[in-house]
Amino acid sequence: MVSHRYYFDWAATAIPVYTPVDTPWGNPSSLHSEGRAAHTALEDARRRCAAVLNVPSERLFFTSGATESNNIVLSSFLLRQQNTPLLYSAIEHSSIRETAALLKVYGKQMGIIGVEQDGRISRTTVIRAFEKYQRSRFAAIMAVNNEVGSIMDMADLVRAIREYAAVPVHIHSDIVQAVGKIPVALSEWDIDSAVLSAHKIGGPRGIGLLYLRKPLEVLFRGGGQEQHIRPGTENVAGAVALAACLEQYVYPETLKNNYEQAVSRNAYLISFLKTIPRCSLIPADRQAIDPRFSPYILHVAFEGIPGEVLVRALDDAGFAVSTGSACSVTRQERPVLAAMGINNHLTVEGIRISQGWLTTKEDIEALCTALQKLLYFL
Amino acid sequence: MVSHRYYFDWAATAIPVYTPVDTPWGNPSSLHSEGRAAHTALEDARRRCAAVLNVPSERLFFTSGATESNNIVLSSFLLRQQNTPLLYSAIEHSSIRETAALLKVYGKQMGIIGVEQDGRISRTTVIRAFEKYQRSRFAAIMAVNNEVGSIMDMADLVRAIREYAAVPVHIHSDIVQAVGKIPVALSEWDIDSAVLSAHKIGGPRGIGLLYLRKPLEVLFRGGGQEQHIRPGTENVAGAVALAACLEQYVYPETLKNNYEQAVSRNAYLISFLKTIPRCSLIPADRQAIDPRFSPYILHVAFEGIPGEVLVRALDDAGFAVSTGSACSVTRQERPVLAAMGINNHLTVEGIRISQGWLTTKEDIEALCTALQKLLYFL
Repeated sequence: MVSHRYYFDWAATAIPVYTPVDTPWGNPSSLHSEGRAAHTALEDARRRCAAVLNVPSERLFFTSGATESNNIVLSSFLLRQQNTPLLYSAIEHSSIRETAALLKVYGKQMGIIGVEQDGRISRTTVIRAFEKYQRSRFAAIMAVNNEVGSIMDMADLVRAIREYAAVPVHIHSDIVQAVGKIPVALSEWDIDSAVLSAHKIGGPRGIGLLYLRKPLEVLFRGGGQEQHIRPGTENVAGAVALAACLEQYVYPETLKNNYEQAVSRNAYLISFLKTIPRCSLIPADRQAIDPRFSPYILHVAFEGIPGEVLVRALDDAGFAVSTGSACSVTRQERPVLAAMGINNHLTVEGIRISQGWLTTKEDIEALCTALQKLLYFL
Repeated sequence: MVSHRYYFDWAATAIPVYTPVDTPWGNPSSLHSEGRAAHTALEDARRRCAAVLNVPSERLFFTSGATESNNIVLSSFLLRQQNTPLLYSAIEHSSIRETAALLKVYGKQMGIIGVEQDGRISRTTVIRAFEKYQRSRFAAIMAVNNEVGSIMDMADLVRAIREYAAVPVHIHSDIVQAVGKIPVALSEWDIDSAVLSAHKIGGPRGIGLLYLRKPLEVLFRGGGQEQHIRPGTENVAGAVALAACLEQYVYPETLKNNYEQAVSRNAYLISFLKTIPRCSLIPADRQAIDPRFSPYILHVAFEGIPGEVLVRALDDAGFAVSTGSACSVTRQERPVLAAMGINNHLTVEGIRISQGWLTTKEDIEALCTALQKLLYFL
């Protein structure tokens, strides 16, 4: 019986820190006082999100989360006659990858932007994709990979695309694992759309944002809420919660401070892991301090121990880690690791250790001790 | 300055009565204890909803609300080669009507099931539609209309369709305004899908249900949650809230008791309105006690007073009513009333007075007094 729990699966969902406040409960579309109060609260939340993300508030749309936001953008291409290739990186979340597969079935040309061995999309892989799919007008590139933590140089990649492509390209980015972890600069990155989710930054489930530089013809229809981008009575309480979480974690000073502490904790963890002969970091050349990777996400494999076995053993010992993305945990395939060219046995053995803002040095030390003990028996 | 508010817009959103309880915050897809606890809570919530609705729990899927649920069902037809006509009633919510318009643009044959003057779909109008669109395999018929409160005899309409149609027909029903208001019997009605929303029954925003008798190939993709029907990390707290609200309002005894009280309050209101010469009930032949209509929704027009003017005047006096569906309040068109053959001036003058479980006899009396005063000046 374990009394204390250590949570290292922040990339799947963050420990909630947001305390709900009373928000107007009216329907924001209603004309009466209750409705107008809700409308005001919703627009205030939107402005707060916009201030943190440094984009115009009318370009932000509240959705139920990042999966829906990704789907809104991708599925909009089903409505277009134009069939220029749609590109997406080999390391995207399942809500891009699976939706891309669907678009392909329904006649859309889909192309993949390759990934380097370190899990990053590079200028080279991007340009190679645009060479192969010359007329492409869409590219989805996530800002931070959710399984290995690789950070994309979004500004540089966007520049490469804008320089290379002869036509305007809609560049979409899943910034779920970037928000509150690394600096996010949607306008400076010069991207056209982005998605994020509240529950990855301490907020409640069921609320997220879609940033859209330009309007989009979308598939789901209804009462015209959110400027016709996302129908359905607005989740005002969720929007207010999301605004509060963004304010708590995304402002530069907090972000920098949290980042430095995460780097320090992660460096300790990596240094420890490098002393274990059976341990392989994924990718192998990841350094204790390595700006290519988010310090909040670490992927690692232990020779001869299937990831799922280790996840369960650690869980019994009081530690929550995961085998990879929670959104594809029940599947055998590990497309992100496979795309990176990771050895088959390592993909089976891989576990993801992801930290958050509440993770402490002591938590990391406890994890190291627990791993050492377990590895003796496993 | 009005100190006390009287809320008569329950059809737009209910006054929240649900008190949030602590629910496991883990990601239900995660393998560790935190994830398993969340998974258990989610499945427990699903079982509770299934018990109330008397359907197998594996046929219920949590979504972000009724608008999304309606869209999931309708947009799935975009994925089908088969192009048999899709029918929907003339009084559907905008999330059916607008999505139907989109399907039409994208090549699907859409047909309308007409409505009788009293706002109800009848055997006759249903069969007429199936005569006109012989090969139709889909029909959407809402159980209770959200603007005039007309109640459809779902069991009878479904029987008519099953008797008439030579092929199996997917019958879909928006039961948003029926749940907790009139008896709902999905299995006995013999329908194939249904949608409802938590915020109409005292729960939070951003959570709803989709009932599907059979699996469906859906458009939005991701991590395979909700049996691939609705991707995205599950809103466990929302699911638990929805289950609690269903348990609070939908069980037969509570339902009957609340219904009888609503009938009594509504009869008082209608009797009062019938004494006002400028007042027209919509439809005109609605009786003080009238089983054709939900006692929770009343549509009424006052000669020479635009609905919006009256809504604002009542709001100033402390009363929240609406001009119609909140989801189309900003539009000039009133498609439901138009389909019923209501005179143009009446549709402009119409207001909706909708009650809830917390509405009291005193609230109704106060509304009658306020209306009388206002009508003297307007």
